[in-house]
Amino acid sequence: MTDSDIHFQPLGRKTRPRPGATLLDLANDAGVSIESICSSLGRCGKCKVIVRSGSSHLNIVNDSEKQAIRDIDLIAGMRLACQAKILTEGNIVIEVPEESRRGTQRLQAAGRERITKLKPAFMKIVLDMPPATLMDIRADDDRLLEELSKKVRTAARFSSGVHKSIPRAIRDGSWRVSITIFRGKEIVRLEPGDTTDELYGVAVDIGTTKVVAYLVNLQDGTVMATEMMPNPQLAFGEDVMSRITFATREKDGNAKLQKSILDGVNKLLRRLSDRSGVNRDAILEVFVVGNTAMHHMFFGIPADHLATAPYAPAVRTAMSVNSAQQGIDIYPFGKVSSLPNIAGFVGADAVAGLISSGLYRDRHMGMMIDIGTNTEIIAGNRERLISCSCASGPAFEGAHIESGMRASTGAIERVWIDPSDWNVKISTVDDTPPRGICGSGIVDAISEMFKAGIIDSSGRISSSRQNVRVRKNGEGMSEFVLAFADDAETDHDIAVTQHDVQEIQLAKAAIFTGISTMMRKLGIRCVDIGRVYAAGAFGTYVDASSAITIGMYPDVPVDRIRFIGNSAGAGARMALKSTSIRDLADRLSKKVEYVELAAEKDFQKEFAKAMFIPHRDMSVFPSVRKP
Amino acid sequence: MTDSDIHFQPLGRKTRPRPGATLLDLANDAGVSIESICSSLGRCGKCKVIVRSGSSHLNIVNDSEKQAIRDIDLIAGMRLACQAKILTEGNIVIEVPEESRRGTQRLQAAGRERITKLKPAFMKIVLDMPPATLMDIRADDDRLLEELSKKVRTAARFSSGVHKSIPRAIRDGSWRVSITIFRGKEIVRLEPGDTTDELYGVAVDIGTTKVVAYLVNLQDGTVMATEMMPNPQLAFGEDVMSRITFATREKDGNAKLQKSILDGVNKLLRRLSDRSGVNRDAILEVFVVGNTAMHHMFFGIPADHLATAPYAPAVRTAMSVNSAQQGIDIYPFGKVSSLPNIAGFVGADAVAGLISSGLYRDRHMGMMIDIGTNTEIIAGNRERLISCSCASGPAFEGAHIESGMRASTGAIERVWIDPSDWNVKISTVDDTPPRGICGSGIVDAISEMFKAGIIDSSGRISSSRQNVRVRKNGEGMSEFVLAFADDAETDHDIAVTQHDVQEIQLAKAAIFTGISTMMRKLGIRCVDIGRVYAAGAFGTYVDASSAITIGMYPDVPVDRIRFIGNSAGAGARMALKSTSIRDLADRLSKKVEYVELAAEKDFQKEFAKAMFIPHRDMSVFPSVRKP
Repeated sequence: MTDSDIHFQPLGRKTRPRPGATLLDLANDAGVSIESICSSLGRCGKCKVIVRSGSSHLNIVNDSEKQAIRDIDLIAGMRLACQAKILTEGNIVIEVPEESRRGTQRLQAAGRERITKLKPAFMKIVLDMPPATLMDIRADDDRLLEELSKKVRTAARFSSGVHKSIPRAIRDGSWRVSITIFRGKEIVRLEPGDTTDELYGVAVDIGTTKVVAYLVNLQDGTVMATEMMPNPQLAFGEDVMSRITFATREKDGNAKLQKSILDGVNKLLRRLSDRSGVNRDAILEVFVVGNTAMHHMFFGIPADHLATAPYAPAVRTAMSVNSAQQGIDIYPFGKVSSLPNIAGFVGADAVAGLISSGLYRDRHMGMMIDIGTNTEIIAGNRERLISCSCASGPAFEGAHIESGMRASTGAIERVWIDPSDWNVKISTVDDTPPRGICGSGIVDAISEMFKAGIIDSSGRISSSRQNVRVRKNGEGMSEFVLAFADDAETDHDIAVTQHDVQEIQLAKAAIFTGISTMMRKLGIRCVDIGRVYAAGAFGTYVDASSAITIGMYPDVPVDRIRFIGNSAGAGARMALKSTSIRDLADRLSKKVEYVELAAEKDFQKEFAKAMFIPHRDMSVFPSVRKP
Repeated sequence: MTDSDIHFQPLGRKTRPRPGATLLDLANDAGVSIESICSSLGRCGKCKVIVRSGSSHLNIVNDSEKQAIRDIDLIAGMRLACQAKILTEGNIVIEVPEESRRGTQRLQAAGRERITKLKPAFMKIVLDMPPATLMDIRADDDRLLEELSKKVRTAARFSSGVHKSIPRAIRDGSWRVSITIFRGKEIVRLEPGDTTDELYGVAVDIGTTKVVAYLVNLQDGTVMATEMMPNPQLAFGEDVMSRITFATREKDGNAKLQKSILDGVNKLLRRLSDRSGVNRDAILEVFVVGNTAMHHMFFGIPADHLATAPYAPAVRTAMSVNSAQQGIDIYPFGKVSSLPNIAGFVGADAVAGLISSGLYRDRHMGMMIDIGTNTEIIAGNRERLISCSCASGPAFEGAHIESGMRASTGAIERVWIDPSDWNVKISTVDDTPPRGICGSGIVDAISEMFKAGIIDSSGRISSSRQNVRVRKNGEGMSEFVLAFADDAETDHDIAVTQHDVQEIQLAKAAIFTGISTMMRKLGIRCVDIGRVYAAGAFGTYVDASSAITIGMYPDVPVDRIRFIGNSAGAGARMALKSTSIRDLADRLSKKVEYVELAAEKDFQKEFAKAMFIPHRDMSVFPSVRKP
């Protein structure tokens, strides 16, 4: 240990204290990954550390910490790493409890891309031109276009600003020049010599909570690198609505939201470049998908009106803007494009999912369900497609769940309960001792609890049977213990509380109300459904029959449920690689009808019925039996 | 007089001394117009003032001043106002000699605009839209485009970046919105309410020495204001070649040249706005013409290659770029456009001149001559058009001429010499006592001197006859006095020196070599020429028969010479007002052939012959008789 440093136990990593930095920053510097899902706002309470010595060098415990940490732990020196700031240099020793460490994150399945013929929006052509002489005094631009027209049939024009590069590009390459053309119409780049082997694009899926970027080689369609980060807009609100509120109330709110996501995407671009060795200047396009609000905020379009009826989006049609104008750090005359939206709450990400699912080609009826903070559903077949959006909330991402966590190392992802003795078997991500419960774990747990009679159809935790796992917690709330502290990597038992059950009931009711409305509009029943495409990380890892048991998925044979992973990312990559896919998306975005659930007259009634497990009307879930 | 001020005699104006400012700056502050044609570089020597008291508050005389001012005048307190800087506050009294005052500048004739049907590139349409409801949840962009298509047949799309304004524009105007469409294809603006009465554009003629801007109301085609300034690039070189040299030698030379002209144009835009009351944000387009080098430098296109054979321009085709991207301070999503060029030294200004002249429609052969630092000639008729450029230099603008000045108050513009006694009659701009000679005056003077036998065909000033007006000047050079100091507003005689005659011979020879080459290529003689279109300020005020006598214009009956004034500015205004004119310009720019004079094998020989007055081969000028 040097004169002045921070030592992270038990990982043995050190770094120098940097006044003003938080312990979380410094942990990152030292290569110690500490969990935090609230963008360091002191809200999620996931970054607890214990200061073993040197606490005098830190700020005093603040209100967020007092709320997140039990008194007894505060006395023991526990802090939130994101709130504890270094004030002065000196030796500090920090213990990082196992449950605060970020293990191997269970990555969202990359998403199923359907096989697509490579047809990128950019074409590169190398030209060998006759040099200018007193006998051939054509202007450079005439010469270029005339020689180009000998090679390809095109009416391409120079993009605004690209003119500047004409004389140098053709002379520096001794009259051999590579021309990049966007969609056959716009010359966006001139480079000296032959650079036709460099053609790159990036697909970005801007989720409300997470942003994922894929670097794609547009020569062969391969994904060269993938990077992700929490959506930096989390600092302005956890969900879409709170961000729109921020935008309307705060001075320059729209601009702040846009800057935050632009900075984030630019950071991902730097990381992709570092990881792959591909220069950012060689990237010609960033192709984004996201829900309508994320789309609007990214492009700097005021999203206020998405928050009030009739929730009309400002822009539906696909966009393609100049990259420098958009503030995205790739080749400055490149493009930043997006898929079209469908409605205020069914965005370009849903269009991407629809494309990646293939639902639009199906002969039989089916639906695509992308579960997230907002859950989008598109239902129908190749004849007709309808869509809706459900406010399902973040419960399936582990938020608002007592022991909730992301699907990373130690997260309980499978639960089996013996109906006879309520004994529990669990499996965790990476098969390590449990640290918490992730989305698929909580669905499994509630399904198993229902089947074992631990909860009834209304979701109430039973008090009828004496069992060591059923008890009241410190706040007098019923809970069911999945893992006792002795068997866990935590200092407390991991349990499902009555409140957790209710959160899941609300979330699944929101989703199923959407599903049942779609079915009613299409005039179909569960038996008519040929395929359910389950999109998103949650959709991938959740057990289908558990999801049916709790009444979240429609009651279809489980082999009709297909997991398509991050379908938004997959659709974005498909569109990045093929203009035919973009054209298809344009057609689909016009074709898909939108149903505003809140405007449906039976919405409240439907929702109330769907709060039951699996449903108040058991005939809707014939395969589910009451315990 | 206050405690500390500067008093300008005899104009009685005062201003406060501002340390760091030059006397020229402060004269401008006080509303005293002092002549300067070198952009305050201390080169032209036109801004001489006499410091009557308070010289201790100024910097000491510098080298430029020592070169420009005679010793005897330096002793008397003479300074160049542009070089004399205030160092400390205090009372200063300045005398502004008459010849340093900028009188009413003889404005370049505004240029003949042919009658053009108004067909601006921008169309404004006001729409009343049905508001969004839960029954009509179309996206804003769909709604706009659908309602628009009910009013006009258009496949217009939103310009990159304009999307951002959609939701506010339509709601702030309570679903009434004005849509501006560029060339029927691109929606560049949305404004709440009805703004269809606001439609403005600016035409700019970027000359090598002067920049003129016209604010045009595109509703009715009227010119609302005109502003001009010296081309600020004069600071980097007097002519095109020296600026290109600057661009290649200096670090960031191209960027500096571009910034300088952009700043200049923006300054003119501010002045137009101030003068007319039209907000700059209401200006939708700036339409520029200029020679190819000015065009390239304005658009930031490297112009290096224009300086070396084969002088190929980088861009011939017409440009239209986003105004914000171009750095021009009008409506940010407006356009900055230009006419096409023809060749490296026949630019968009010549195309504008061709359009304004109407030569391209003529049945008979003719030519348009635009005399400037570079003189462009376009010759032919509606069947065939050819062009060339002549390096005529700035002599006709008064530069490099001993008593040369601009055509402003007191400039000798007409000269008559009595062949019997060599007595001189003059007329001046504004009929005030003479201050110097302007371009038309020097042509007149040389023509008259030739006809009176004061100079011979070789240009040599005669020493055969004793006359008070013929003498040697201080440097031993022959000169002919046009006005003695007693009759002038100067303290010295105003004379034409042997060197002046030679400068004019060089300039006119350059022009006539171009003319004769054009005639040879077309296989025509003077008798075949139906019309000579004389463009430019010089062309307007020069006496046609004098110009023929010295051998500068082809020998045609003077009634075949038509003065078309600033044809570049006129053509720019026509193109600003009509897209049909732009389309015509595109066709013409492709059609006009270019002849590189330097590549013509008899160029040197032709030039040498044209040095004579009017020509070594007198048969070329049958109407001119030797004295």
